[in-house]
Amino acid sequence: MTEENSSAFEAHQNLLRLRQSIDNIDSALIYILAERFRLTQAVGELKATHKMPPADLQREAEQIIRLRETAKSAHLDPDFAEKFLAFIIREVIQHHKAIALQKAMT
Amino acid sequence: MTEENSSAFEAHQNLLRLRQSIDNIDSALIYILAERFRLTQAVGELKATHKMPPADLQREAEQIIRLRETAKSAHLDPDFAEKFLAFIIREVIQHHKAIALQKAMT
Repeated sequence: MTEENSSAFEAHQNLLRLRQSIDNIDSALIYILAERFRLTQAVGELKATHKMPPADLQREAEQIIRLRETAKSAHLDPDFAEKFLAFIIREVIQHHKAIALQKAMT
Repeated sequence: MTEENSSAFEAHQNLLRLRQSIDNIDSALIYILAERFRLTQAVGELKATHKMPPADLQREAEQIIRLRETAKSAHLDPDFAEKFLAFIIREVIQHHKAIALQKAMT
């Protein structure tokens, strides 16, 4: 094996190793997200039963502040953490609206 | 306290309890995401050093199939899992491009 080939082989092995860890982390993220949606499903049902509005801007503002702080202490870009939360909340609010609609129809 | 008030109070207490769990889960997600970015940062550096392209469509296709399966077993909407992965990968590829650009400039 030439030196260049050997270095390319080693790089590829390193890539595979890193990807295996990324895959494990992604599985963990999916299971935790599933649990988060079970909780927000319960919130959605509670809100629909008690006719509370699906979105809560004050709660969202507090979550953003808190998660930006958490991101800093985890050395994660706080802007990314905020985008991530917005992505999740968009999905959750859609679910809440669907639950409220379903309750209104039954 | 009237019955209606008591029920509203209980609902609010339940909401606070659920939100506390959601906050704990969000902190866990942020710490795991931070670890994921440490790994993809290492992938980005490896790719830049060995002049591999930032995106890898075959790898992404495999990740989608795998995560949709994981989502099913976690009772999470597989479409949401796929959207979530796309969201993360978009961010990672931007990081990889930035790393490659930085390496090219130094």
